[in-house]
Parts: sequence; C-alpha cells; structure tokens
Amino acid sequence: MNPSRFALPRRILPLALAAAMSCAALASAPAHAQGMPAQQQSQVPGYYRMMLGQFEITALYDGYIDIDPKLLRNTSAREVQTLLARMFVESTPGVQTAVNGFLIHTGKNLVLIDTGAGACFGPTMGKIVDNIRAAGYDPMQVDTVLLTHLHGDHACGLTLDGKPVFPTATVYASQIDADYWLSQDIADKAPAEAQPYFKMARDAVAPYQAGGRFRTFKAGDELVPGIDAVAAYGHTPGHTGYLLRSAKNGKAQSLLVWGDIVHSHAVQFRRPDVAIEFDVDSRAAVRTRKRLFNDAARNKLWVAGMHLPFPGIGHVRADGNGYTWVPVEFGPIRTDR
Amino acid sequence: MNPSRFALPRRILPLALAAAMSCAALASAPAHAQGMPAQQQSQVPGYYRMMLGQFEITALYDGYIDIDPKLLRNTSAREVQTLLARMFVESTPGVQTAVNGFLIHTGKNLVLIDTGAGACFGPTMGKIVDNIRAAGYDPMQVDTVLLTHLHGDHACGLTLDGKPVFPTATVYASQIDADYWLSQDIADKAPAEAQPYFKMARDAVAPYQAGGRFRTFKAGDELVPGIDAVAAYGHTPGHTGYLLRSAKNGKAQSLLVWGDIVHSHAVQFRRPDVAIEFDVDSRAAVRTRKRLFNDAARNKLWVAGMHLPFPGIGHVRADGNGYTWVPVEFGPIRTDR
Repeated sequence: MNPSRFALPRRILPLALAAAMSCAALASAPAHAQGMPAQQQSQVPGYYRMMLGQFEITALYDGYIDIDPKLLRNTSAREVQTLLARMFVESTPGVQTAVNGFLIHTGKNLVLIDTGAGACFGPTMGKIVDNIRAAGYDPMQVDTVLLTHLHGDHACGLTLDGKPVFPTATVYASQIDADYWLSQDIADKAPAEAQPYFKMARDAVAPYQAGGRFRTFKAGDELVPGIDAVAAYGHTPGHTGYLLRSAKNGKAQSLLVWGDIVHSHAVQFRRPDVAIEFDVDSRAAVRTRKRLFNDAARNKLWVAGMHLPFPGIGHVRADGNGYTWVPVEFGPIRTDR
Repeated sequence: MNPSRFALPRRILPLALAAAMSCAALASAPAHAQGMPAQQQSQVPGYYRMMLGQFEITALYDGYIDIDPKLLRNTSAREVQTLLARMFVESTPGVQTAVNGFLIHTGKNLVLIDTGAGACFGPTMGKIVDNIRAAGYDPMQVDTVLLTHLHGDHACGLTLDGKPVFPTATVYASQIDADYWLSQDIADKAPAEAQPYFKMARDAVAPYQAGGRFRTFKAGDELVPGIDAVAAYGHTPGHTGYLLRSAKNGKAQSLLVWGDIVHSHAVQFRRPDVAIEFDVDSRAAVRTRKRLFNDAARNKLWVAGMHLPFPGIGHVRADGNGYTWVPVEFGPIRTDR
C-alpha cells in the first residue's frame, strides 16, 4: 500500500490547518439531531440491470475472493505492483476480485450464466441466490443454466447439500470441459492438491445428471434462441463464452459473456500475456485472451466477465500495446433510447 | 452512434453461422419453465456504501440529465465525438449525466452533501429521498446539509411545495454563492433566461432561512468535525468542495467531494481546459479543475463528484497531457482491511 495515499493533500492542507486553528465554525456546529441513527454499514443489493435489444440482462454479484498477486505468471512482482497501484487496487490481504453471474431474460427463457461458488469457498462468496431474489426472480424460475467452465467458483452454486438449487433448470456445459472435469480417470491422475477441484465439478452437476437435466454442447451451438456458445479454450480445456444477440426497433446488439478471460483487470488489460496459476493451459489462455480482446475492441462489443469489477459489464478499447476496460455507466432502464 | 457497434463480431461470426445452420442444439432447447415470469425491467436502488476511516459514506443517485454536448466550450464537435466514442458514451438524445449526492455518517453527524434536483427538472431526477430511504436512513435524521453551490440540481431537493424536506437539518452554503444566487439585485440584472436559476436557489433555501436554519461559511471553515470547506470557485462564484478526513487504527483517509469539477468525464479528464455553458466564470472553472485534478492525482485522494458516473467515487490518475478517472470497485463493507 502506498503510504502517500493517506497523506494530507498538500495544496488543500493550508485550508485544513486554518480551520483547525479557528474554533468559530465548530462552535456553531449543530448538536446531533434527535434520534441519531447507527451507521448502516450494509451494502446495496448485488444486482445491476441493463437491456440488450429485447433481452434483459441482470448482473449478479456472488461475492469476492482475495487473490494473491503472486499467482500471476509471465510478469514480475514489481510490474504487478505498478499496474495495481495505477488502478488504485490494494493487494493486502490479496486483490479483492469479484465473482459474477449473469441472468438473461430473453423473453422466452430465463437463463443463468454461471452459478457462483455456492458453499465451496467460504462466506465471502455464495450470494448469487440472494441476489437473484433481490432482483425480483426466484431460482425456481431459471429454466437454463449455462456454465462457462466447471471450476468451483462458477459451478458449485448449482447444488447445495446434494440438492439442485435450480430444480427446474437444464444445465449445459462444454463437452470438452465435461470430458475433463467429470472424468474419474483424469482426476485420479491429477496431483493431490488438484483433486478437490474435480470433486467440486462432479458434485455440482451430480443431481442434474441424476435428473436427466445435464447436457453438453460443442462450440458454435445455439443453446437457447439468441445465445451461442463461443470457444474460449485455455483457462480450462472447454472454457466457453456466450454470445448474446438481440434486436429492438431494427437495431441489433451483441454482448459476449466471456467467463474467465480476465482475473486481474488492472494487470491483464495492460498485459494480455500475463496468465494466472488457475489456467489449465496458460499458453492457450493467453492466445484466447488476445483474440477476444481484439474481437471485442474491434467490434465495439458489449462484454461481461465473471471476475471483472461488478457489475462486470462494459467495453474494451485498444490502448497502446494493451487495452483499457471501460465499465458500463450506472443508469435506469430507459425506454427512450 | 457508430454503426459498427452493432455489427456482428467478425471472428466470432463463423461460429454463429455454424449454429444457425445446425438445428440440433435448438431441437434440444428446454421449453419454458413453469411460471415464466415477466421481465422485471427495474434497476437496483441508487445507493452505494463505503467506509472512509470511521466515516460511513453513502453515495446517492438523484437521477440523470441528458446534456447536449454542444454546451461544452473550448473544443470542437469533432473532438467531443472522438472523446465520447472512446468511452462508449452515447450522445443521442444527449449525454446521460448522473446527478449524485453523498450522505456522510461521521459517527456524530449525519451530513448530506447536495440534495439533487427535487421537482425542478422533471421526472428523470429527484430520487434522492427515495434512495436515502432505500439506504436505511430517513430525511428527518439528516442534521446537516452542505451545498457545493446553489444550482437547482444541487439545492432544489431541499424543499418541496415550500416545505423543508430535511426539517431538522441546518443548511450551509458558501457566503460567496449565497451573496450571488440569493441576491434580488443581481437576479434583476441577469438575462431573462437566467432568472429561473436565481428563483430556484431562493425558493430552495427559503424555508430554512425562515426557520433560522440557513448558515453561510467561508473556505477553510470546518463545518462539522472532520469536514472542511475547500474553495473551488469558478463554476459558480462560491462553488465549494468538502474535504472529509477520518482515521481508523491509526490510518488517516481523505476524500474530496468536489461538486461540479467535472460535467463530462469522457471529455474533461482528457481535456481539463474544456468548460461548460453552465459555468459562471469558465476561466476560473478551468483553473480550479486543473488545480484539483493535480491535487487529487498527486495525493492519491479519494474523490466524489456530483456528475461523475454513479456512484461517482474514485481516484484520478495523471495520464499524458490529461487525466484518467478510476472508479471505485464494487464490494461489501469489509472490516478486515
């Protein structure tokens, strides 16, 4: 942490000192109002809405995880600190990193893309069902769950205590990711410290498999009308983005829900070749990140990401040797533009 | 609007076409879940919370105003369009511009900085009381209102139908701004089209004056413990920022609520010398903007602004010939960092 962050502003300082030396203003400060309340110290519910053509998009906050910046690859501790400081990101006790899901009401389907961490990673995550409810929906109403990949912070939210959290939904995962994460054979050959991640994936989908509600797809498939699977392999073998397309008044709009293309916005937009320990194939992950950054910037696509600062929706702009993330601006749902 | 924004992404396109040509995926799409709900099309409540030392800061969304970019000065239409497009900001029917206020619970006082537009500017604004309630407080609990200046979109929220909206609060404005906007003499000499703005200011403060609850200050005064008035003259004659300082566990933190230093984030951070039609003294406004950008960047200050994208809280980084706005990242109130 940069100590100068907490220093008094140099040019404003004389005014502050002048105030401290004069008690005139303080003497006239009002007493507490009757019924001075306690500080609320609660946060606004973790959802955010926007329209994309006729699709209603609801970003959902599952919580956060503090990621040790030492997990970043192809960079130095010094470069990481410089890039974090540039975006005013603290790194103690880790870089606070959002976990997001996205609920899409297409008019015909209610589709949840990723389900958050459920009970797999402790109390700072697992809030997605609370936020679905805060946003006015019920988990029973979700008819389709699309998974970007089978890591626990995306799939564990499917299942609680062995029971499906979305009991009427059909769950889709990439055939390639399913072949990897659900394979007992591959799990058995994995290092001991990786075994829990295979188990999380199996446990998450088990009740849906048992109920005949788990299906796999290949890249290019349209999973519900207006939502296509887009190959984004590398972070996991079958890591998948979803391209949403909807038109209104003859204006087509597109949004790419790109899953885990970015884990550290402060570092990876500037340095797309920086990978993270969690990547199964970091070279492929870097190639995919560069390709999707380029696609998103060139086509001025709306993008949504699972570990971008909540609500995780925005645009990508090419900027020198790297890119800049431009988050969506808060606003109401407007019908006049 | 750039038409390419709505074009299909070139490299993703083949996948989408492949999907359209194969009906296999579609055939297996689930039917609607029982009880398919209507789209909610509502937005999350307009508040956002953070702690600053022991102060609880609640950003409040009053709504938005569409500002015609032709109101910007010292620039060209072409440059404005380039800078807006760079930040993916639409300009039809105007640039959607937030109106924010900030509620500070210092532990001893509940202080509202600016009150939004009330009923002065139509139904897209005037939501600040709704959002104070959504945030868990009541307008009756506000003991102090600080005004950055006496423009209607900051002061009209004080009063509805001639009655005080914050009946137990003492209202503070800069002596210089009060001398200007509350002067019948200056109003009488102003052009006809400016007259309503003087009337808005007078009507807004009238019930507080009548109740002996309107006070003025000079720059440098500490208005409640930990909140100092900082001269930021130009946009209006007495336009004032508020410097908040609070410490916790020996760590001092500062936040500058800078009022109307920025009306167009996409344009003015890159080009601080761009002014806006609403400035009473645009040369002084530009000087003040440059000084505060420099102070904020050099001291890594937290900043809050009334027309920055909600929640309007973040940091300023020097960047080439201009500056970059780095918005706060969404997160819960944490007690462990």
